[in-house]
Amino acid sequence: MKCWVNGIEADSIDIADRGLCYGDGLFETILVTNGTPHLYNQHILRLGRGLDRLRFPPETLDLVSAELDRLDLKGDQVLKITVTRGVGPRGYAPSSGSEPSRIITLSSYAGNDQHRLTGINLRLCSQPLGINPQLAQLKHLNRLEQVLARGEWSDPDIAEGVMLDVDGYPIEGTMSNIFWVASNKIFTPDLDRCGIQGVMRDHLISLLRAEGIEVDIGRYNLDDLHLAEEVFVCNSLIGIWPVIQFEASTYAIGKYTRLLQGLLQKEISS
Amino acid sequence: MKCWVNGIEADSIDIADRGLCYGDGLFETILVTNGTPHLYNQHILRLGRGLDRLRFPPETLDLVSAELDRLDLKGDQVLKITVTRGVGPRGYAPSSGSEPSRIITLSSYAGNDQHRLTGINLRLCSQPLGINPQLAQLKHLNRLEQVLARGEWSDPDIAEGVMLDVDGYPIEGTMSNIFWVASNKIFTPDLDRCGIQGVMRDHLISLLRAEGIEVDIGRYNLDDLHLAEEVFVCNSLIGIWPVIQFEASTYAIGKYTRLLQGLLQKEISS
Repeated sequence: MKCWVNGIEADSIDIADRGLCYGDGLFETILVTNGTPHLYNQHILRLGRGLDRLRFPPETLDLVSAELDRLDLKGDQVLKITVTRGVGPRGYAPSSGSEPSRIITLSSYAGNDQHRLTGINLRLCSQPLGINPQLAQLKHLNRLEQVLARGEWSDPDIAEGVMLDVDGYPIEGTMSNIFWVASNKIFTPDLDRCGIQGVMRDHLISLLRAEGIEVDIGRYNLDDLHLAEEVFVCNSLIGIWPVIQFEASTYAIGKYTRLLQGLLQKEISS
Repeated sequence: MKCWVNGIEADSIDIADRGLCYGDGLFETILVTNGTPHLYNQHILRLGRGLDRLRFPPETLDLVSAELDRLDLKGDQVLKITVTRGVGPRGYAPSSGSEPSRIITLSSYAGNDQHRLTGINLRLCSQPLGINPQLAQLKHLNRLEQVLARGEWSDPDIAEGVMLDVDGYPIEGTMSNIFWVASNKIFTPDLDRCGIQGVMRDHLISLLRAEGIEVDIGRYNLDDLHLAEEVFVCNSLIGIWPVIQFEASTYAIGKYTRLLQGLLQKEISS
């Protein structure tokens, strides 16, 4: 792994960094294939939206972008960008004087072709997502809910878990967004109250729209997911994994899943 | 400031530490006066409960305690203990092999005698607390809600802000718990759905019980707080700050506030 902290090669940060103390920051994880970062602009745009929502200094994104521009990307890798509010005195108040910390890492990545091809088993997590519209959508560093949900199983035959919000509505996977198909319509949960607005989720919605297919975004019940004909999960690294089993429900790998996988594959190889 | 990471003097941690990546950890902030940590056992017990809830390895608390035992505490200081799940590979799954990180710092502390004596102004924060019973009470490292709430004001004449949960019930201050008195009864919000279970909060409830005074713990409305006769906030560092103004409401510094302040003062000076 190669890593830089504030533009300098380093692998540690100050223990007074607010990223560590309070999870006061954001991150992005970007797939690099043949030296090209996939959906780069979309990731940078989401990071910018997050920085705005967390009221980071307006120049933060430029600082990050300049450091990213200096990277010499090669081959297949994962580019991870973490931005925190930097080192500050004890206490929650964000101090206006501190410079945000930028942590950039490049590490190797072995995608799971088998999962993409033959699909995965999904489980239901008992750890719920708290409801908090002000923090919803953001890929911030407060990720204990995901950690606890992912810690619920170690069975390697289960690749992902579905998380419900505290009211019992399905929202997303522990590390992915979820879509399903029923009666020839595509559905994905609304993220207005919780959940991470995945760059890949938004990209798939755009790809479908370009094909003339609208996605229904709303509040759905767990039964809707169980009764679906086709289910898949997605994120920027894994692309799209078809779901073939979710608890007692089984699904065929359907035409929308294969259509989107094909469109993604074309983008990445081009 | 003096700091130790895993028992060794150091002031930085690995950028792959899960405390930074996900806020996967807990912290305690302990007041040391004349070399004596106040409510030490209660802090260690709460840390232990948190480690259990987050499913840290069972030996973690012993590891921390042994390092705390080696400290040479002197004078008036703040002892901060942070425990994270340690360095791990990318991904939310807690890996069973990683050793938890222990970060211990000792720093100077100047308490605010004026606030204790003459009281503070309180404001209402617009940033709410998300509801998530599984994470409620814990002093974990996912503190973005508090950061955003505390970032809402910079007026030095306002010392604390009240946070409501997303349903609009008052829960706590950004860095304190809250109590109020009405018709000779003492009230504090239930923390079953969100909020941090402060060591000082629990201690004050015990002190009152020892005086034959029960505290009503429940779900209250903002109006209850406005209509109270006496209001105070507390935490382990500040002790008790009387509230003299909250938005349009004003309060006298009452007998329960002064009683508890007196009891605390006796403990700390003894």
